[in-house]
Amino acid sequence: MFAGCETDTVPVRIGGKWTVKIIICLKAGPRRFSELQTPLRGITPKVLTESLRALERDGFIMRTAHAEIPPRVEYELTPLGRTLFEPMAAFCDWRRAHLSELLDARETYEHRVPTA
Amino acid sequence: MFAGCETDTVPVRIGGKWTVKIIICLKAGPRRFSELQTPLRGITPKVLTESLRALERDGFIMRTAHAEIPPRVEYELTPLGRTLFEPMAAFCDWRRAHLSELLDARETYEHRVPTA
Repeated sequence: MFAGCETDTVPVRIGGKWTVKIIICLKAGPRRFSELQTPLRGITPKVLTESLRALERDGFIMRTAHAEIPPRVEYELTPLGRTLFEPMAAFCDWRRAHLSELLDARETYEHRVPTA
Repeated sequence: MFAGCETDTVPVRIGGKWTVKIIICLKAGPRRFSELQTPLRGITPKVLTESLRALERDGFIMRTAHAEIPPRVEYELTPLGRTLFEPMAAFCDWRRAHLSELLDARETYEHRVPTA
């Protein structure tokens, strides 16, 4: 083992491609499925359902089915879900500060002389 | 568009499953391919190659082929790559503080009465 190589005792995968976007969409309050679909352009109903279920499973969101006709189901962040805003903000800060360097690197990489 | 739903003008996907682990393994200095394989138990050579290429493309690591016999190739973090430690630390802090809540939520979810 090399210095600095930490191993996770519990390897836990948190979130998928849409996790951050969904959490941001729920920041202002509860949303219905269709109210999430609109801002999350490009997400299929199947993937949104799976993403919401994964977030519920991890305790980040709560699903509430209101006993109304027609039935109304809402999703909202739990207190645990709201704790994610802090590390997410650290990545947003990073993005703002360094995204252009990353994009420059990609541009350079694509145009470099190929090596074996 | 709902309040709080930010859309990315440039959607950029940073890193895959192994990104964080590789970056941690390179923290102490340059490493050869085989020196990464050992601590990253479970990674296949194909996936390690792809992951290193993606990190190089994004400007996070530099690949140096030393003109020696036998040839020696080393990977090391660039200054841009080192800037990732700050947001990564924010997530490690989150993990330390909240991982048990997440695992409890998963446990509860798995054992709850299934709903439609």
